[in-house]
Amino acid sequence: MTQFHAGKHTEQLSGCPLGNAAVGQSGGPTAVINQSLVGLVKGLRGHDEIQGIFGMRFGVRGLVNDDLLRLDRIDDGRLSNIAATPSAALGSTRDKPDHNYCRRIFDACKRHNIRYFFYIGGNDSSDTLRIVSEMAISRNYELRCVHIPKTIDNDLPQSDHTPGYPSAARFVAQAFIGDDLDNRALPGIKINIVMGRHAGWLTAASVLARRYPGAGPHLIYLPEIPFDLNQFTQDVQAVYEEHGRCLVAVSEGIANDHKVPILKAAHHHLEKDAHGNIQLSGTGALGDFLVETLRQVIDKDARIRADTFGYLQRSFCGVASEIDAAEARSCGFRAAQIALSSGKSVSSIAIKRISTHPYECEIVPIAIEDVAAQTRVMGPEFLQGTNDVSLTFIDYLKPLVGKLPVTGRLYDDDHHNTTAAAVQ
Amino acid sequence: MTQFHAGKHTEQLSGCPLGNAAVGQSGGPTAVINQSLVGLVKGLRGHDEIQGIFGMRFGVRGLVNDDLLRLDRIDDGRLSNIAATPSAALGSTRDKPDHNYCRRIFDACKRHNIRYFFYIGGNDSSDTLRIVSEMAISRNYELRCVHIPKTIDNDLPQSDHTPGYPSAARFVAQAFIGDDLDNRALPGIKINIVMGRHAGWLTAASVLARRYPGAGPHLIYLPEIPFDLNQFTQDVQAVYEEHGRCLVAVSEGIANDHKVPILKAAHHHLEKDAHGNIQLSGTGALGDFLVETLRQVIDKDARIRADTFGYLQRSFCGVASEIDAAEARSCGFRAAQIALSSGKSVSSIAIKRISTHPYECEIVPIAIEDVAAQTRVMGPEFLQGTNDVSLTFIDYLKPLVGKLPVTGRLYDDDHHNTTAAAVQ
Repeated sequence: MTQFHAGKHTEQLSGCPLGNAAVGQSGGPTAVINQSLVGLVKGLRGHDEIQGIFGMRFGVRGLVNDDLLRLDRIDDGRLSNIAATPSAALGSTRDKPDHNYCRRIFDACKRHNIRYFFYIGGNDSSDTLRIVSEMAISRNYELRCVHIPKTIDNDLPQSDHTPGYPSAARFVAQAFIGDDLDNRALPGIKINIVMGRHAGWLTAASVLARRYPGAGPHLIYLPEIPFDLNQFTQDVQAVYEEHGRCLVAVSEGIANDHKVPILKAAHHHLEKDAHGNIQLSGTGALGDFLVETLRQVIDKDARIRADTFGYLQRSFCGVASEIDAAEARSCGFRAAQIALSSGKSVSSIAIKRISTHPYECEIVPIAIEDVAAQTRVMGPEFLQGTNDVSLTFIDYLKPLVGKLPVTGRLYDDDHHNTTAAAVQ
Repeated sequence: MTQFHAGKHTEQLSGCPLGNAAVGQSGGPTAVINQSLVGLVKGLRGHDEIQGIFGMRFGVRGLVNDDLLRLDRIDDGRLSNIAATPSAALGSTRDKPDHNYCRRIFDACKRHNIRYFFYIGGNDSSDTLRIVSEMAISRNYELRCVHIPKTIDNDLPQSDHTPGYPSAARFVAQAFIGDDLDNRALPGIKINIVMGRHAGWLTAASVLARRYPGAGPHLIYLPEIPFDLNQFTQDVQAVYEEHGRCLVAVSEGIANDHKVPILKAAHHHLEKDAHGNIQLSGTGALGDFLVETLRQVIDKDARIRADTFGYLQRSFCGVASEIDAAEARSCGFRAAQIALSSGKSVSSIAIKRISTHPYECEIVPIAIEDVAAQTRVMGPEFLQGTNDVSLTFIDYLKPLVGKLPVTGRLYDDDHHNTTAAAVQ
């Protein structure tokens, strides 16, 4: 991929305003969001136009509350450690600023002479930047805004993929590789609930565990395909009868053909039974509901279990994808370059894939309108039937996740004496 | 630790029976149970007394059903891959053999001229070996049985720790390091449910995430201490008021002072409300119940979430502890030595710690009666009050888990401008 080297810019940058830069992190953390932060800091250093680099504590909330940190004098060793650390080092926020909130953000920029505004986040963050930038233009205040994309959901438009997704996908793949072997050793039906409210990208990454004939996940359910509970039980029964076990990947966002999330549909049903006393909220509910559904129809002796991967997917320490880390770093660095070299007042960034074999991509500026408040779901070329992903998707995903740990087996499922001779 | 080198035994082994060896894996898989399998195979190779090495598919079930694999001719490269693979490569079983089942096991040993019987498992496995060995002695059939310990629960007596535990503890530590930073970035109350029905060893490993002042887990609840729901809510409230957030580690096996598991107590309560229609079974139930309990008393705006780590703790691919892998391998190798050199008909193995600084241990034979059907819980020296572990426990655990990934922070919780200057 394109490399961006840190260091003092040599060409003369005409027309760049003199002032401070501010950076914030927003939304759900990822394993590499701090790489973007560090890449940005390194990209801004050494430019005379940048007087100070301010970190907003807990996103724009820190900006409006004057809760800011100086980031320009942190030594490289500490920056390296922070870059390799999961979650948002500045703190994050779930605030989705309305017009008044954006006005307070703009006022804070003026108060601190902030002329460069960077926000690392999803499409809500890009929308905030768009509004603040419009305010600055209408008030004739020179402010350069760059959105740095981040989400494990991989659902931002225009990008081949989003920083944070490859590492979360790697976690899901390593989890499924192990859980498939666990399910193979103690056969039964196992359901794993994976994050992704509207798009199935992360759940689909489970497919990388299919590394031998008969390996799971045997079924993959995504929000892109309407979920039918009867079809689900039939699918599971069929796999269980064929393989004597069944590993299932289910997106937390699966919804019926009226786009009602299955968890909500189940909740309504159960609430009625319970005269309003029982709530199915909480993270284990969807998995438990699917297990109970299967228990009604699958033979009594079957082991049926569910795990909900939860927040581990976005914060687990120690399984980041190397490509993801490098790209997230480059996105931060590139954002600094864009702010300092383009005449545009507001911009976002996208990762464009140049080729898959060998994997190569570039990081390019895109219009903020192309990313703000939109969601990118998996296209039909990545789906296979109602419960699987395509080979095209596997080809797309593999280079992002990187080399996975080597595993070995003693026997094949169909002919168990292939690798170790059976006793005569 | 003591090293055991593979290779042909040079000393004359008098009185060892001539025949086949058989090995099985039992109970919940671990990240390193295949290391013990491979260590055993390597320890048995090159000994003339051993005619064939048979692997039982799915534990003793494979033995009684003549479902056996030849393990003596697998090349070293493949063995290395299998050793590094989580879960039980032979398949496992939950069968707990009664006297009749043990009789069928003994008959199978005679049928296949099995003279060396190795079973990698927890205390149920050791009990099976004990019974089968007694049958062999009473029938004058020479059979050498060695139990190779394995459990992520770390609850076998006599051992300093059990192969499988350090790797699961490492997973829990890495999960909590990331989740603590996630909770720090988006403050709220977060509960993580960790495996361990009767002993808190694995839940206690979460303490390794406390790497800076104010870090979580702030509260740790273990089965060794009676759990009081009112005290729990008071504890959480106090931490939440002090830190603005609260990360909690909860063992799945927490029980009230009548030794009734909290999940069961909650289940009874909810079942009554729901007129018998609702079951709180399934893995997410305890976490969801605790979240709902806190929601009744904590302010409405608080983010309260629960994750249940589930099977990922024992099968996740790629985070094994190096010490654990080496020790599990040595246990397998040592089991072969014990069977071939001691005159004993049945034995188990324990890891004894020689010193902590530097870490050193040895693997020694112990009497099977000392491990069979017993459970080792955490002693009072490892506990601190009603919701924490002691420094003694941390000292005990650290060398087992090994060096954890380096992380960095931008600011301290109490004085947030220590590492990065606050904006004046």
